[in-house]
Amino acid sequence: MRPIITLTTDFGLADAYVAAMKGVILGINPEATLVDICHTIEPQNVLQAAFILSTACEFFPPGTIHLVVVDPGVGTERRAIILRTPQAYFVAPDNGVLSYVIPPNSFEPLVDGGQLVRLKTGLEATAITRPQFWRSPVSPTFHGRDVFAPVAARLSLGLSPSDFGEKIDSVIAFPYPYPHRVKDDVIRGRIVHIDRFGNLITNISSDDLPQRKQSISIEIGSSIINGMVRTYAEGEDLMALIGSSGHLEIALKDGSASVFLGARVGDEVKVRQKPENK
Amino acid sequence: MRPIITLTTDFGLADAYVAAMKGVILGINPEATLVDICHTIEPQNVLQAAFILSTACEFFPPGTIHLVVVDPGVGTERRAIILRTPQAYFVAPDNGVLSYVIPPNSFEPLVDGGQLVRLKTGLEATAITRPQFWRSPVSPTFHGRDVFAPVAARLSLGLSPSDFGEKIDSVIAFPYPYPHRVKDDVIRGRIVHIDRFGNLITNISSDDLPQRKQSISIEIGSSIINGMVRTYAEGEDLMALIGSSGHLEIALKDGSASVFLGARVGDEVKVRQKPENK
Amino acid sequence: MRPIITLTTDFGLADAYVAAMKGVILGINPEATLVDICHTIEPQNVLQAAFILSTACEFFPPGTIHLVVVDPGVGTERRAIILRTPQAYFVAPDNGVLSYVIPPNSFEPLVDGGQLVRLKTGLEATAITRPQFWRSPVSPTFHGRDVFAPVAARLSLGLSPSDFGEKIDSVIAFPYPYPHRVKDDVIRGRIVHIDRFGNLITNISSDDLPQRKQSISIEIGSSIINGMVRTYAEGEDLMALIGSSGHLEIALKDGSASVFLGARVGDEVKVRQKPENK
Repeated sequence: MRPIITLTTDFGLADAYVAAMKGVILGINPEATLVDICHTIEPQNVLQAAFILSTACEFFPPGTIHLVVVDPGVGTERRAIILRTPQAYFVAPDNGVLSYVIPPNSFEPLVDGGQLVRLKTGLEATAITRPQFWRSPVSPTFHGRDVFAPVAARLSLGLSPSDFGEKIDSVIAFPYPYPHRVKDDVIRGRIVHIDRFGNLITNISSDDLPQRKQSISIEIGSSIINGMVRTYAEGEDLMALIGSSGHLEIALKDGSASVFLGARVGDEVKVRQKPENK
Repeated sequence: MRPIITLTTDFGLADAYVAAMKGVILGINPEATLVDICHTIEPQNVLQAAFILSTACEFFPPGTIHLVVVDPGVGTERRAIILRTPQAYFVAPDNGVLSYVIPPNSFEPLVDGGQLVRLKTGLEATAITRPQFWRSPVSPTFHGRDVFAPVAARLSLGLSPSDFGEKIDSVIAFPYPYPHRVKDDVIRGRIVHIDRFGNLITNISSDDLPQRKQSISIEIGSSIINGMVRTYAEGEDLMALIGSSGHLEIALKDGSASVFLGARVGDEVKVRQKPENK
Repeated sequence: MRPIITLTTDFGLADAYVAAMKGVILGINPEATLVDICHTIEPQNVLQAAFILSTACEFFPPGTIHLVVVDPGVGTERRAIILRTPQAYFVAPDNGVLSYVIPPNSFEPLVDGGQLVRLKTGLEATAITRPQFWRSPVSPTFHGRDVFAPVAARLSLGLSPSDFGEKIDSVIAFPYPYPHRVKDDVIRGRIVHIDRFGNLITNISSDDLPQRKQSISIEIGSSIINGMVRTYAEGEDLMALIGSSGHLEIALKDGSASVFLGARVGDEVKVRQKPENK
């Protein structure tokens, strides 16, 4: 079976940085299948990359290697790591870009309010430290091409994470922004992503909501949406539904909810269970 | 020979929706060659997708599987179909997105002025109804990932359309917007696409025009172009020529005809055979 | 080993022109691995394409075939060529788009101040003239699909450049815009590319600069940058560093140097060795 390597970067589509990485990979493993996840991550927006990556990687077959290069600290002391989960390999800078692919119950905070977390069972992290597997010389400004790409390519040839450096037991991860339950009947969440259609994807998952979805109202800014629909076509105006990632999503019939509401990532979304249904 | 699966969607380049579909496909058939046709179709613009698809699919080898997901009715009762032509397989919602890949003489209208057409000889359509070939559970908002991608992947493994559901004899198709011949010497067409260069591609084909192309004038808005050129480089200002799809095209030397003329898709283009040449 | 064909065009991402070329290639060689270098070259900007191509092609394995279609003269008498270097094959119009992949010491000017150059040892150019390897009929406006793509595909099957036409000993190439050394202590260069991050990449290479990089100041517009940093993270505001292509680059901490300075491709950048360090 041909190994799969995906690429997620903030390099955009107008430069040849992504192509340079692909050239390096194919020079090492011409049999690799390369798949772009996204290259239009906002420059240096580590959390956006973490989110986008988390929405795609679960749909790839086991053993897929995900190469992630959103790397504001390139060339500094920040570590480069390989993270191995039961499902996949991730090759990335250790800057939190893998935060949302680490299952919530598989790590514990190491630093109070901080971002260094200890990995628990089922996950394995390796610091990439052995230069013999890199391109030489290494540009201090482009580890994607000179460190991460060759490491991913050699992983795809069957090398083991331990070939590239020492096992480490902690990595940087940002806590997933779970919604808060204010009272029994109010959930406070927020918009974590706005997609191409202007749909507002929230951090409130299907499981956070009551079974009877008709009995809730959703507040965003000064707008209130009563009840939920199942599909975009069922809504008539502003609508709420469970999107394809299993999260509460706000959409606009034949338009962009984002433009219509002036909504942005980070904005609050409140779900209220309607009193008459208690 | 490795099977080819192309992808055409309105998912844009900033989300991971396309990547999720590719992950699903490669999980089922790791040998598939994936080719992007276009992912920047205007949200829900079924006819634009139909047009873009029709300009590319004829250049792929026989047996190529074209996956098309522009799907405003996702999750509703609209059908999902496989269309088999002598040249290719198409996997798509039954919403007209395949209108322009169905040869004009291979169907007949079923509904007066409507869009349901009966397929004639040489074409075969199947309703995708057997859930055992889908991902489970199916998100009501993302059949591209959960229905169309796994069906395309399994088709590429050698399954037959009939494995996925029952044969149907009608599908939804919009009539191709043929130009009108007003008098013997005037053809009324319109702009059906504007490309990246600002070239205005019309629905008037080379065959619609008289042999002696120098004897015509082309009117768009208040501009008149006399005669035609053979290449973009030959023109000196606004020019008319036969583009790479075999259609009359209006271009501007070193610029965008679209910007220069303020032209939009749907605008009328009139071709007049000059009297002195009759 | 599967042959690699890269694609660089000005076709953009909203049309199916690139997909049509890929379909043609895969119809001829289904085993080819296709890699996009860049499709958002400014329409007809031959020099931008030459630059982007030169930053990527060196990272591909030997024998890679680079297909380059930025072709304002399509359909005219401009030649179509195959250029073979020790490292790769290039299939492109003979309009200067390969200027920066030809090593500077491997050609000599043929025309005073002109652009026709004679290739010296180690390079081999062929005029593509034999129609039996093209699609038929050839559209006068899309040689990318009908001439260049089939030639690249057949090259990847093992045909030799000489199968496609006669050897030629001169091609069109623009001189690389080397910086000027004004006095011993001043270098005048310019911005040759602005990347997605707004970094300003200059034509001044690392070798042009003195060893002690702290002893220089960089002037752009009315701004002066003293000394250089090694990584983007080390800078605190406007900074100068050696970028991943080995050239002097001006960047802005957490922002776009291009926007901040209002800088454009072609703008002058002056490097001055500071007197106190002489």
